[in-house]
Amino acid sequence: MTTIPLGPGSEFDAIRRLLDRWGDLARGVGDDAAVLSVPRGDALVASVDSAIEGQHFRAEWLSPTEIGYRAVAAALSDLAAMAAVPRGVLIALGVPAAWRDRLDEIADGIGEAVNGSGTRVLGGNLSAAGELSITTTVLGSVFVPLMRRGAKPGDRVYVTGQLGGAAAALAEFSAGRSGGAHRHRLAHPIPRIAEARWLADAGATAAIDISDGLAADARHLATASGIALSLESTKLPLVAGVDANLGVLSGEEYELLVTAPHALDVGEFEARFRLPLTEIGKAVAGGAGDVTIVGMPHIQIAGYDHFVG
Amino acid sequence: MTTIPLGPGSEFDAIRRLLDRWGDLARGVGDDAAVLSVPRGDALVASVDSAIEGQHFRAEWLSPTEIGYRAVAAALSDLAAMAAVPRGVLIALGVPAAWRDRLDEIADGIGEAVNGSGTRVLGGNLSAAGELSITTTVLGSVFVPLMRRGAKPGDRVYVTGQLGGAAAALAEFSAGRSGGAHRHRLAHPIPRIAEARWLADAGATAAIDISDGLAADARHLATASGIALSLESTKLPLVAGVDANLGVLSGEEYELLVTAPHALDVGEFEARFRLPLTEIGKAVAGGAGDVTIVGMPHIQIAGYDHFVG
Repeated sequence: MTTIPLGPGSEFDAIRRLLDRWGDLARGVGDDAAVLSVPRGDALVASVDSAIEGQHFRAEWLSPTEIGYRAVAAALSDLAAMAAVPRGVLIALGVPAAWRDRLDEIADGIGEAVNGSGTRVLGGNLSAAGELSITTTVLGSVFVPLMRRGAKPGDRVYVTGQLGGAAAALAEFSAGRSGGAHRHRLAHPIPRIAEARWLADAGATAAIDISDGLAADARHLATASGIALSLESTKLPLVAGVDANLGVLSGEEYELLVTAPHALDVGEFEARFRLPLTEIGKAVAGGAGDVTIVGMPHIQIAGYDHFVG
Repeated sequence: MTTIPLGPGSEFDAIRRLLDRWGDLARGVGDDAAVLSVPRGDALVASVDSAIEGQHFRAEWLSPTEIGYRAVAAALSDLAAMAAVPRGVLIALGVPAAWRDRLDEIADGIGEAVNGSGTRVLGGNLSAAGELSITTTVLGSVFVPLMRRGAKPGDRVYVTGQLGGAAAALAEFSAGRSGGAHRHRLAHPIPRIAEARWLADAGATAAIDISDGLAADARHLATASGIALSLESTKLPLVAGVDANLGVLSGEEYELLVTAPHALDVGEFEARFRLPLTEIGKAVAGGAGDVTIVGMPHIQIAGYDHFVG
């Protein structure tokens, strides 16, 4: 570990414990700010995402390690949506007294997500708080970012993976059960970093990650691109036991919705990533932002809204 | 404003309101992540800082605008400590229902801090929460970062501005009064961005911003540099009515402590920035991390510790 010496004090002791836990995953931590070189010619891509107890997760549903993993994996998914390569993360933790002795487990989950995307912890902030919060800043780089706004009329629409697992698991938890068959989809989403690079190299024109649900995120992409999307409910790749309605509303999937002007080599994608890639519809001109799902005329496209209620 | 269209929903409405409030200060917001180019040859410098209600500020002491300003100014101060030029900030807001109608005022304070440092809002995250939190990621760049670890034995030690105002104001508030003569020092710290660039160009070898108090931050710098510091209490630049004891313990000053191998042109600095620059001691060999303040043999160097108690 190339961290520099920290001063004394119990806050610094807690930071040291985190750094020990992360080992080589944490590098250069300890100055006022992290220093990082961006490959020449690349643009820097940066995003921040918060996971707050009671809003984004419930402590009785997930383990501390899963809570840490999921917070950071969700943030890294925003880099995947831009087809960026992760260059490091900053972790701001708000830790209530009752959570202090679970900090090692939270750190393990954070480390797992960081390691899984081949990146590292560059710095962070540790503070006492009234509720547990994990705010992750992800830094990545890419020569040509894949944006939401690049879709053109006529483009084909694809989605990675299978949909509905996160919502199915949430429904199980909400009914007082332990998450059911798809618990892992909620607890352990995988940012599609390498998949996104493949898709960009294959000519994808626009992308978004599915954090608000396919229907809502399709609308974000369509709005940004100034096009409409026509999707087909029968083509949706759904996990076992989930209907299309739940599948298109299921948030926190962290799969990618992409558009491409030509057919993508689905076989090569699936062989390489052992993950489905499914063509589910088309971009069409006019009605900017409209999303039609053939076979589901009455779908309400709202996504998850933190400010409702 | 070059933001791209967002979808519907009250969370997005709230984000739109923030963006309207920020106007040209917010650019490129709305995709999964912000895209930013770093000047060729520069290193990227990144840091994150949280301001949490009840931990870092009290709503009865500061206005919502001051709370927003202060959170972002404190984060930008970490770029000053590295002599970096700000390139943008990401703002993660956790907003309880009771704070929603003050969001415009908080945004105004954030905008003021961003504007004051000549930078912009690149993106962020807005979430419901049980307590108000503002987590600011600052992104900057610099050709050669000024680190904590560069001080050498024999270096002179300087501090910008005057010390003790923040602690004096806190003491006034804690006594039930309205902050006193130095209220503004606590409510409206100024990140020393341009001053840091001057100091780096003048040959400074190490720097830290004073967020934990001069004594504690001197110790951080000495520890990182593997040297000891010998400071003189009679040389400390104190605000009126504050003694040296309060002055060296006063946190959240956001002044800079720097070292330099030669005398700095204090007159030029003060003429340019209308701010004192004061030589307060020397770096000495041995006893890595030790800080002696001549005239204050018994000073306790602890700084503010979020994890005590």
